[in-house]
Amino acid sequence: MDTNAAFISEAITAAGAQVVWRTTVGDNVDLIVEAIARAMQRSELVIATGGLGPTNDDLTKKAICKYFKRQLVFHDDVLKKIEERFKARGVSMPAINQNQALLPQGAEFIENEIGSAVGIALAEDGSLFVALPGIPDEMRLMVSGWVAEQIRRRAGNFAIIHRRIKTTGIFESALYEKIADLVENRGGYQDGDKISVAFLPSWRGVEIRLTIASEDPSEGRRQLAELEARIAERIGDYIFGYDEETLPGTVGRLLKEKGATLAVAESCTGGLVGKLLTDTPGSSEYFVGGIIAYSNELKVGLLNVPEALLQKHGAVSEQCAIAMAEGARAKMGTTLAISVTGIAGPDGGTPDKPVGLVFIGLAAPGKSKVMEHKLGGGRERNRERSATLALDMVRRHLQGIE
Amino acid sequence: MDTNAAFISEAITAAGAQVVWRTTVGDNVDLIVEAIARAMQRSELVIATGGLGPTNDDLTKKAICKYFKRQLVFHDDVLKKIEERFKARGVSMPAINQNQALLPQGAEFIENEIGSAVGIALAEDGSLFVALPGIPDEMRLMVSGWVAEQIRRRAGNFAIIHRRIKTTGIFESALYEKIADLVENRGGYQDGDKISVAFLPSWRGVEIRLTIASEDPSEGRRQLAELEARIAERIGDYIFGYDEETLPGTVGRLLKEKGATLAVAESCTGGLVGKLLTDTPGSSEYFVGGIIAYSNELKVGLLNVPEALLQKHGAVSEQCAIAMAEGARAKMGTTLAISVTGIAGPDGGTPDKPVGLVFIGLAAPGKSKVMEHKLGGGRERNRERSATLALDMVRRHLQGIE
Repeated sequence: MDTNAAFISEAITAAGAQVVWRTTVGDNVDLIVEAIARAMQRSELVIATGGLGPTNDDLTKKAICKYFKRQLVFHDDVLKKIEERFKARGVSMPAINQNQALLPQGAEFIENEIGSAVGIALAEDGSLFVALPGIPDEMRLMVSGWVAEQIRRRAGNFAIIHRRIKTTGIFESALYEKIADLVENRGGYQDGDKISVAFLPSWRGVEIRLTIASEDPSEGRRQLAELEARIAERIGDYIFGYDEETLPGTVGRLLKEKGATLAVAESCTGGLVGKLLTDTPGSSEYFVGGIIAYSNELKVGLLNVPEALLQKHGAVSEQCAIAMAEGARAKMGTTLAISVTGIAGPDGGTPDKPVGLVFIGLAAPGKSKVMEHKLGGGRERNRERSATLALDMVRRHLQGIE
Repeated sequence: MDTNAAFISEAITAAGAQVVWRTTVGDNVDLIVEAIARAMQRSELVIATGGLGPTNDDLTKKAICKYFKRQLVFHDDVLKKIEERFKARGVSMPAINQNQALLPQGAEFIENEIGSAVGIALAEDGSLFVALPGIPDEMRLMVSGWVAEQIRRRAGNFAIIHRRIKTTGIFESALYEKIADLVENRGGYQDGDKISVAFLPSWRGVEIRLTIASEDPSEGRRQLAELEARIAERIGDYIFGYDEETLPGTVGRLLKEKGATLAVAESCTGGLVGKLLTDTPGSSEYFVGGIIAYSNELKVGLLNVPEALLQKHGAVSEQCAIAMAEGARAKMGTTLAISVTGIAGPDGGTPDKPVGLVFIGLAAPGKSKVMEHKLGGGRERNRERSATLALDMVRRHLQGIE
């Protein structure tokens, strides 16, 4: 699972580079050398990640030495820094980490502020090769710092500008139809100064990504803003945010604006809605907590759902969703409370109540609402989509959208 | 973020193929054609995902037509199936989905049981090219079914066998040192009949992956089992599972074996521990639920943490972690309860209690335990690692490991 490549693409595009190719190869020196050779022919900048660790299966340094025809040289100053890092954590350095002070001759090194593998940079025929550690936090600091600085220095005014419009609650094709005339012939890759438009669906919604490559960034931004405004006019109700904004973050911002607080009552999502809300730093300003009532006993005991209600309608019902939300709001003393109860699967479905049936309840001052959804996917998808629908129900309520 | 490639690699390796190269290119027909051409030269099987959707930015079919020199032909039977699918969901098909019935002439089609984009297969010069939809659920069904069957038919007895040993609670280099003599000269790629060993660290622990390529799968499995046993002898306490096993799944299995139940009391993890426990189908057998006490008011009100304790020691303290776990166990009537309280960051740290300081409490019949951890990473890492440490504390308790 390559989470690094996604980060690097975003970060270096923001700095002014255009990503054209990405390759993954097995742990084999000859394959790595071949991948480096092809990439160095193709691009001015080549970034490799991973394989700088101390163990035997870390082969990137060997491949670098083979491709660039260098020797590994021992660097005493690098070893000292690695030893100090272990010391600061109160552990003695395993002997094997000495390997990480063996580095290709004549390379430039990129300091690692939080780990033991330094980055390695080598230039050849006008192209720059950079090898970074595979551990995400360490790689990210180097990309955002040293690598981005190299790109900005070369890119000058030229910039690739993105605007991401984030929607949820609507199919990709239905969304497309609403704005087809605005985005026609804008498919595909950057084409001169024209804005390109991509639709990126996921379980959490559809992202519309507008991109323009421009020597005049402020003019590029103006064009993006113009198209964005026309799109928002058509589909505004489905938009929960832009660029780095997240749905839980938007819910948090709206709650803060209204001085409101929120609690959760979760059954099938098992804590996921609370987890998503607390992904955002500072969420304690509006999120007080919640009750994970996975068993019926806890729905009764902690959320005051009447036993008779459970017997008559079952735990997966409109009535139970409302009782859970109202119980959570009363128990935790918040402005709003949201509840989720459903059948996540793969088991537990019946003809009447199939896998994917989910009820989401919202308790607010003076009124409660409930929504029924038929999702019908796998367990993970049903849980992720249920949590997203719950958060979006809070967003719509706070924005006065029906 | 390419989650598809990780799945495909695992699935086709299990079927007997060896993955040698993976490429990602931008939404540009010429780049896609170049990538197909290189891959068809290199491999007997080439799998592409994505770009089969109905919108303008979906270019894979255009690239296939260009590389294989085919025309797009309209398939009435395919359109009928797509229309039926929308009908079953109670929505009418957007006109744009008609595009998905336009398919390259002379190709074989792979049915999509849950979506509207069919898979496309074309053979040339002994290599097979397959284009699959990018939506994970749809792609997965086709890979596990049609594609795996093609590979098994060609592979015969030859098999690549993996064994994944999953550990947590120990650094990669410390783990390596404990078993260095067993895994030396086993780095890197498959080398004849020899077992290769890779160390794959993540926030949740270090996975040791043993791989052997063999014409005699039962002999290969015997060799893997022998090495696995020698490794487990050294580091058994850190191993929580093998292959597809997960830490929450192992905790669940151990709870079921002992007829025990579990509740959670979460502060900084905000519901993540509950979410992880309920990832496993059937978790309602041992997990009853929990309380997300993000605010101090709820720690007092719902978990009966004494106010005086909070004032004296603070919410991030040994004392509070124990009180939370004991409060959860009493309130929810379970055999065990686990609590997490800490400073996830990026804000809220002090010199005494820095970001990354986490206390995990475990309440069990007749005794409580607490552990202190200094993690010191970003918010997401601190929360993921805290949840993992909490689950591992339950595992160790149930297995009698100190």
